[in-house]
This record gives sequence, structure tokens and C-alpha cells, in this order.
Amino acid sequence: VPSKLGPHSYGKSRIRLTKVKRLPDRHELVELTVNITLHGAPFRRSYTHGDNTGLIATDSMRNTVYVLAKDHPIDSPDAFALHLAEHFVITYPHVQSAHVGIEQHGWRRIEVGGAPHPTAFASAGNEVRRAGASVSRDGHFPRLPSGFPASLTAGLDNLLVLKTTDSAFTGFVRDEYTTLPETTDRILATNVAAGWTYNHPRLDFNAAFDRARATLLTTFANHKSLAVQQTLYDMGDAVLAADPDVFDIHIRMPNKHRVPFNFEPFNKEFANDVYITTDEPSGEISASIQRE
Amino acid sequence: VPSKLGPHSYGKSRIRLTKVKRLPDRHELVELTVNITLHGAPFRRSYTHGDNTGLIATDSMRNTVYVLAKDHPIDSPDAFALHLAEHFVITYPHVQSAHVGIEQHGWRRIEVGGAPHPTAFASAGNEVRRAGASVSRDGHFPRLPSGFPASLTAGLDNLLVLKTTDSAFTGFVRDEYTTLPETTDRILATNVAAGWTYNHPRLDFNAAFDRARATLLTTFANHKSLAVQQTLYDMGDAVLAADPDVFDIHIRMPNKHRVPFNFEPFNKEFANDVYITTDEPSGEISASIQRE
Amino acid sequence: VPSKLGPHSYGKSRIRLTKVKRLPDRHELVELTVNITLHGAPFRRSYTHGDNTGLIATDSMRNTVYVLAKDHPIDSPDAFALHLAEHFVITYPHVQSAHVGIEQHGWRRIEVGGAPHPTAFASAGNEVRRAGASVSRDGHFPRLPSGFPASLTAGLDNLLVLKTTDSAFTGFVRDEYTTLPETTDRILATNVAAGWTYNHPRLDFNAAFDRARATLLTTFANHKSLAVQQTLYDMGDAVLAADPDVFDIHIRMPNKHRVPFNFEPFNKEFANDVYITTDEPSGEISASIQRE
Amino acid sequence: VPSKLGPHSYGKSRIRLTKVKRLPDRHELVELTVNITLHGAPFRRSYTHGDNTGLIATDSMRNTVYVLAKDHPIDSPDAFALHLAEHFVITYPHVQSAHVGIEQHGWRRIEVGGAPHPTAFASAGNEVRRAGASVSRDGHFPRLPSGFPASLTAGLDNLLVLKTTDSAFTGFVRDEYTTLPETTDRILATNVAAGWTYNHPRLDFNAAFDRARATLLTTFANHKSLAVQQTLYDMGDAVLAADPDVFDIHIRMPNKHRVPFNFEPFNKEFANDVYITTDEPSGEISASIQRE
Repeated sequence: VPSKLGPHSYGKSRIRLTKVKRLPDRHELVELTVNITLHGAPFRRSYTHGDNTGLIATDSMRNTVYVLAKDHPIDSPDAFALHLAEHFVITYPHVQSAHVGIEQHGWRRIEVGGAPHPTAFASAGNEVRRAGASVSRDGHFPRLPSGFPASLTAGLDNLLVLKTTDSAFTGFVRDEYTTLPETTDRILATNVAAGWTYNHPRLDFNAAFDRARATLLTTFANHKSLAVQQTLYDMGDAVLAADPDVFDIHIRMPNKHRVPFNFEPFNKEFANDVYITTDEPSGEISASIQRE
Repeated sequence: VPSKLGPHSYGKSRIRLTKVKRLPDRHELVELTVNITLHGAPFRRSYTHGDNTGLIATDSMRNTVYVLAKDHPIDSPDAFALHLAEHFVITYPHVQSAHVGIEQHGWRRIEVGGAPHPTAFASAGNEVRRAGASVSRDGHFPRLPSGFPASLTAGLDNLLVLKTTDSAFTGFVRDEYTTLPETTDRILATNVAAGWTYNHPRLDFNAAFDRARATLLTTFANHKSLAVQQTLYDMGDAVLAADPDVFDIHIRMPNKHRVPFNFEPFNKEFANDVYITTDEPSGEISASIQRE
Repeated sequence: VPSKLGPHSYGKSRIRLTKVKRLPDRHELVELTVNITLHGAPFRRSYTHGDNTGLIATDSMRNTVYVLAKDHPIDSPDAFALHLAEHFVITYPHVQSAHVGIEQHGWRRIEVGGAPHPTAFASAGNEVRRAGASVSRDGHFPRLPSGFPASLTAGLDNLLVLKTTDSAFTGFVRDEYTTLPETTDRILATNVAAGWTYNHPRLDFNAAFDRARATLLTTFANHKSLAVQQTLYDMGDAVLAADPDVFDIHIRMPNKHRVPFNFEPFNKEFANDVYITTDEPSGEISASIQRE
Repeated sequence: VPSKLGPHSYGKSRIRLTKVKRLPDRHELVELTVNITLHGAPFRRSYTHGDNTGLIATDSMRNTVYVLAKDHPIDSPDAFALHLAEHFVITYPHVQSAHVGIEQHGWRRIEVGGAPHPTAFASAGNEVRRAGASVSRDGHFPRLPSGFPASLTAGLDNLLVLKTTDSAFTGFVRDEYTTLPETTDRILATNVAAGWTYNHPRLDFNAAFDRARATLLTTFANHKSLAVQQTLYDMGDAVLAADPDVFDIHIRMPNKHRVPFNFEPFNKEFANDVYITTDEPSGEISASIQRE
């Protein structure tokens, strides 16, 4: 059959790593999930001929993550992602580009007697910080000291937020399929996923992440929302305004509806007080916000 | 066939409720998942004869939760559970006992400019606070003002904690099935589930819960662990010591292993630094700790 | 603090095993998840003193599962559970009793050209077959050839079934909290979990399981249901009638509601045709059915 | 801040529908999860100005699914997706394009006495059939009778398959990061996700889906695999060869490793018999296969 190989990728996903940094007065704890994807011309023949010459086993990618984690400080997931991606391009001349995506799982120090404990931690929840690094053999991205061009993304996922007021939804189409009443005061709950790209790979990744996250949260909290779309746009716009190093941002904000309970059969009135929590169906709102 | 009905129960689970309390200067947010179980002789005939006389539809239980939530302050999940359970016993003379279990999902105020926002919240994570109330028509439990005996439980689930040191595991059986080395310094990570019973239903539920949770965390953090079992026991023991209103406690602490990465093939040495995060298999440790 | 250790247990959960049996003309595939719990007086001191003398590391339990799986035929999960539980009681004189619970994950042969393939398989879905064996040092259960008493349970979980008719729900309490209309024809959908005990450990486990499962399914399909409770009872009753080796059975059947879509605003009529699929809230119905 | 709206979309996800078709001799059961996305210039102003003029509420999209499901036969998810997408473009002149994605959840008739029951069903498992339809106001795709161009995709997800032999993995890079031994006989287990596009929207969707699925399964089962990549490629190639109506196909096959148990410490030998079942980390292999 006259078929051909189109876009393809291979790699290793869900490599889970815990690293403890043993400082004199306290330990630091880092927990990451790493995903690696490699591209390169020789990998085509695994698909087309079952010829694995040049193929780096995904098990070896996994080993590499743990081995490199030993000597790298992992001060930020971004720096470690960059280090890993660069490693693959430097080590294997036939690797055209490497992408490393990292999820960092948050831990907070347990408070004991009002003070943070030096070696005991509790999970900070489901929210995930993301970092992504792509290093190529050539291309138009800013170059690393090693000479290879690199592009960087960062983001967060599962940031579950809710505002109890300052959210309206009016003016939409009313026709034979419409039963939703207009409202000038509803709950807005959403599970924010945001991803942004940096203009270059030389920045204080933790400061940039903290700034973006704080800006997203502050804008969400203070927003007088006329639509989830508007809130989303203003959140993205605020991140671009807050940090010139952020090139663009993509945000997804599914609308996790809180449905007013119908008190009519019970001779009571809904007073923006008691809602049914639902997961589905959910509104799906997403957009990229870019610099002009 | 000569068969008979043994122990049975019916009710409604996963009733999800969001309540907003609109105070002058801020809103308060409560999110609960409610489970209800009713017992009573007439319910037997639904099983044995399909005769639903006296059966309270589980859909009506659901309605009841939302209707009662409107007028109840829900200052604590415990108080609301008690209120709901009592409601069923008072309202339906043929209900012998009612059990209400509530999970409270935590929300924290979003910080804006260093101050907690009055109407915007972020999820506090996966951890769940539990409250359970059983109200019976008769029995030996302490009685409510209404005259009905009530028993109360409280607890938490999904409290994911980790300590990077002060955990040893030595002295266990070494035989032909043993490959685990002894260790005097390992990571101890676990997902604590704890449930305790109160001696009576007249206490400050939030203060009691906070005390128990803080005691569990502090003991976990400070413990010099010779076995997960020992840490678990001492955590339960500390809760009993801290609060005479707690009658007994049950704790489950699955061992979420962090496995030392084997650096041998790479000519490096494991230095309690780089671990493989795993979910399975997991050690399963649980126990009740009781007063003498 | 004058506290004491109450009921406690320890063991290993989620030990996942794939075994291939290489027969001359085909391979057989078995996939199990094994959970092990051990009891014994010496284990108390791990809790109370951090003294692990006599403790069998849960990691060694894991090793034992794989090592014993090599030589055991694993013709049924029940036989392997029994073998494992007996192993722990025989091998360790201080083990008072051992419980092994096994979930078997189903695989079907892929059909190629109308014939089952000898070495390729597709998952049979989420449904899980369960087997449980408890072997004690003493007790009143029937004894194994080794002389140790044993008790056996079996069951299934995640058997998701739905009938489109022959399900009514009428005659229940109508009061101020009731909005659910009576119906003589609704969808009944449920996720059956059933567990039963055997009278003795010497039976054809696969035949007994297949008989119980087929009986549950047939009774569910043919039942003229007046309540989920009644369907559940009749399903359990039928299993007891079909197999004298089954001592009793416990069934849980959460009501996974299909809610009639309200066509009124659209000038159409619901004709038992279009339903909203929901997961929550769900009715919770469970019962044990026993021999007289 | 000089920012602008980039690519954006909005819609409703996870609309869950159960439809019963009441034929004289039996019922037919269809269960779908529907996702809808609409595009159009007026929707921009919701983002940029909170102006919802022209916005079709996602709640109205949900209503539309149920209302249209009543009169449509839903003989295939593809036909219903096309019908829904076309509806939005026809009904709302300002909608530029509509995309509808449907997941169909399989149900099999329960066998009673060897015959399929007319009104009782059991879940066919986790595997999901997918259909996607995009209808635009203009574009180069083949046109529907209504004159609107349409593009169609189909696929499946969660097709969990395993072959116990005929899978090798040799010849890959051996360097300082490599510990994986070469093997000429291993288990290959994967959770296939495949999506393909059709050349035009006028075909027997069910026959085309069944042909593609059977071809994927047959090729997987019979393949002498030198790499997961090769098996994937040959599966896609076979689908293109089997159906000229399929334009291209994308397949993702994560490698769900079965890891040989290390019997060395136990003086036994691994004989391709006992494996550890793992979920993570997993190899990630994906590719598009296209016509020349």
C-alpha cells in the first residue's frame, strides 16, 4: 500500500522523581513527573523497518532523568527541563530536537508550634506547576550558552478557584433552545489551566512563575465578570502586562457550574445561597492572548 | 428457596452542596458531599416484596439536604450532619436510625495584596474533613436535647505527608523471601486517613477537629520512626492525650514508597537524595488506638 | 497516656502480576492484583515499641507473590489466594492468620478471521473478579488438607448493567420533601458489586464463579422490578438457590440514575426515550441475603 | 497593555445522553458523551468586552443535544455529530463553524439462556468509539446536501491489548545510560488510541468503523514486532489499505510495560512467565500514517 510516515514522536512519560536536598539546617523536597520526547531522522526506520539503530531506548531516557537529577540542583523545574533537553541534543548527534515537559507537585512544610518543620512536609494539593523546554539542533529561538536554540514554556494546571459574586451572564441569545435565565450575580468556579511562553531562556524561573500565578489569581479575584471569556482574557492580559518576558499565554477555564437549587416546590426562595455542585456538563472556554 | 434478608441499608450518596453565607464584609463558602443512610423495619418489604410503603425516596433525601441547608448555619459539618440525622428520625416515626456522613472540601481565601479576599477562593487541595452522625430512636449513646441518642465521628482523609528523615526500618525477618535492606534513614510518605469518635455530641466541633489534625501532623513531623506502625500508634495516642472528648481513633497509613534509585550501573552512589516515586504496591498499615 | 492498641492489621496492597502460561498450541494470560494482610501477636510490638522482631516486611510479601506465582498453575484466583494464605501460616509459626484478596482482570482472545488468536488478547473491561482466602492457625472453618482451617469468599465488582424497561418505582412516601414522580417504567442502571462466601474450600472455583455471575445477570435481566431493593434481593436469592456451596451473599447496587430529559420547554414530550446520564448523586442499596 | 485575542474557542463538554429506541421486539440502547465547540467572529467580544450579543449559551447547546436526539435515529455517532454540527451552522448565521465530538460507550446485550436479551444490557468496557464532525460556512471540504462543507473524523480510545509473544526489541543504542537488555521475546501491551479522517461524509459509518477496528486488532495480533513503532506503523498502514475512504490515521500506543520479575535472588529463572504489571513510566509512541 502506498503509505508514508507522517508526523511522529516517541519518548517516555510519567517518570516520577523525588529529590531531597540535605542542607545543614533543613531539607528541601522536590517532586517531579518528567516526560521526554525526542525527534530525529534515524527514528523513522523503527516505524518503517523495525530497525532500531540509533534509537535511544525509552528506558535509557528514564535512567538519564535519575542520573542527571543527582548532580543538578533542580532549583526550578524549568532549569532541569532545559538541562535534560540540552543533554539529549548534545549527547546524541542524530537527535534533531528534544522536548522535556515537567510537572512539579507542590509540598509545604508542616507547621509545628508555629514554625515550619525542617524535614516534614504536607502536600500542597492537586495544583501542578509546569515547565517545558525544547532544545533543537537548529532554529530561530534564542540560543543557550552551548549554542543550541531553546524555547521555553511554563504554566500551571488544576488551579481550582471560585468567586461567590462579581460574576454576571446576560445578553446572550434567547431562542427556542434557551432555558438559562440571565443573572447578574452567580458563582463562577473554574479549574484554571494556563501555559505561557518565555521570550528567552535566561530568567529567574521561580520569580516569573510566582508573578504569573499571583497575577492570574489577583485578576480572577478582583474581576467584575460579564462572561467567563472576559475574565479569562483579562487574566491573560494582566500576565502579559506584568512580565515583559512572557511572550504569549493560553488559558483554559472550564465552567464548573454551581446550579441554583430550585426551592419553588418547597415554598422557599433561592437567595444566592444554596447551590448544587456539578462536574458535568461543563462550559469550555479557552483562548490565547498575545502581544500586538 | 429458604433465604432471608440479612443486614441491609439504603440511602443516597454523593449529594454535593455549595453554600454561600453572605456576611456584611465578606462571604463564607462551604462545600460538602453528603451521604445518608436510613434504617427501619418497614424498609425490609422493599427487598422482600417490592412494597415501598414507608420508603422515603432517595431523591427526597437529596431534596431534604438542600432544603435544610438553607436555614442551617452549617458552622461545622458535624453540626449539619447531626441536624440532618435528627431530622429523619424526628420526621419519620418508622425510621429506626439515620446515619449522615459528610465530607467537607476545603477552600482558602485568595490572597490579594497580602490580604485575604472577601469573596474569592482557591481549593485547599484533596484533603477532606469528615463528620458522621448517627441518631437512633433508642440506644445507649448520649442524648440530644430532643431526647434521641446520638453518636458522632469525625476524621480526615487524603492528608498526604512526607518526612525526609527520622524514619528507620530494621530488625524485621530476613529469610529466603527477603531482599529489602535494612535502613536507618529513609523517606516516610503516607496518605493519612483518620477517624475518631467523640464521647458526646456537645462540643466545639471545629476546635476539636483542628486540635486532632494539628496533633496528627505535629506527631508525624517530630516522630523518630522505627516503623510506620509505631508512628501511627504514637499519632493516635497523641490525639487521645490531647483531647479527653475523643473516645478512640482509627488510623490508616498506606506506605507510599519512595524507592532509592539504583546508581550502581552508573558509577554513582545513592546518598538519600534521588528516589523513584511510586504508588503501588503500597504497604498497608492500620490500627485503632483506644483508651485503657 | 493510658492508651492501648485496638484492632490492627498490616500487609501489602496492589501487588500487580501478569502470568503467561505457554501451552503448546496457545498461551494463557492471567492478570491479578493481590492484597495481603497478616495477623499475629508479635506484630503488636511494631506499633507499641517500634520493635520489628518477627515482622515480615511487606516488601517480602510482594516477593513471595511473584516467587509462588512461578510454580503455581493459577487456574483460579481462589486457588492461588488459598495457596498464598496457607504459605504464610505454614512458613511463619507466629502468624496467627493470613488473608489474601485477589482481583482478576479479564482478558479475551482477539478474534482474527473468526478464530480466537492463540497469543493476542484484548481487555475484557473494568469488571473485576474477586477471590479472598483466610487461613488461620485455629478456628471453626473447614480444614485444608494441611490441617489449617480456611474460609473463602468470591465475588465481582464493576459489573455495570442497565435494563431499559421492567423497572417501576411507586408507592413510596409523598410529603413536603418529595418531588420525584411515581413511574411504572424507568431505566434501571447499576454497578453491581457482589461478594459471597463458600461453605468449604474444595470446589470448582471457576464453575462456581461462572454460575453465580450468570445467575446474577439472568435474574437482573428477567426481573420485573418494583424497587432496586427487590431486584437486589431476588438476585441474591437466586444465587443461593443455584448453588448449595454458597453460604451467603452481599450485594451492593448503587442506582446510577438516568434522568428523563424535561421536554416541556421545547413543546415535546418525554416518551421513555431520551435521558440524562448521571453519576451523582446515586441511590445506595445494599443487603446480605442469607440461608434460613 | 497592547494585547490581542489569539485563537479561542468555547463550547460545552461532557453532555451525557442515554437514548432508548423501542422497537417492537427489542430495545436498542445508545449512550453518548457529546462535546460541542462553536467559532464565529461575534464571540470575540465576549472575551474583549464582556459583550455576549450573539453568544449561544453553552446551556442552550446542552438543551439542543437532548432536543435533537429525540427525533434523530442516532444510527451512528458520526451521523448524529454531523446533524448537530450542521444544525448550529444552519440555525445561527453568525456561527462560522461548529465542531461536534462524540464518544460512544458500548453496551452488549446480556445473554440469557444463550440468547441476547431484548431489553437488558451490560457495559462493553472502557473502550470508547469516537466520531467528530466539523461543519463550516465555507471551505474546501466535500459538501453536505445542505451545501455546507463538512469534515469527518472517527476513532477509538482505550483499546487495551496485549500480545504474549512475537515482540522483540533489539539493536537500540547501548551506552552509559543503558541498562535494558535486548530481548527477542517480550510482552507487548498498549492502550491504543486511534483517530482517522474520512475522505467524504457519505459512507456507512458503522461498517467503516468496524472495518478499521478489526484491521487494527488483526494487525496487532498477527504482527511480528521488532519495535512498537513498527507495529503501530503497520497497523495504520493496514487501515489505509483496507478502506479507500480513510484519508489518514493517527495512532498513539503507550507502552504499558510488563517488567520481568527478577528471580535471581530466589534461585529461580525467569522464563517469560511472571511479570510485574506497571502503569508508569510508560513509553510513548505515536505517529500519523498518510497516503503517498
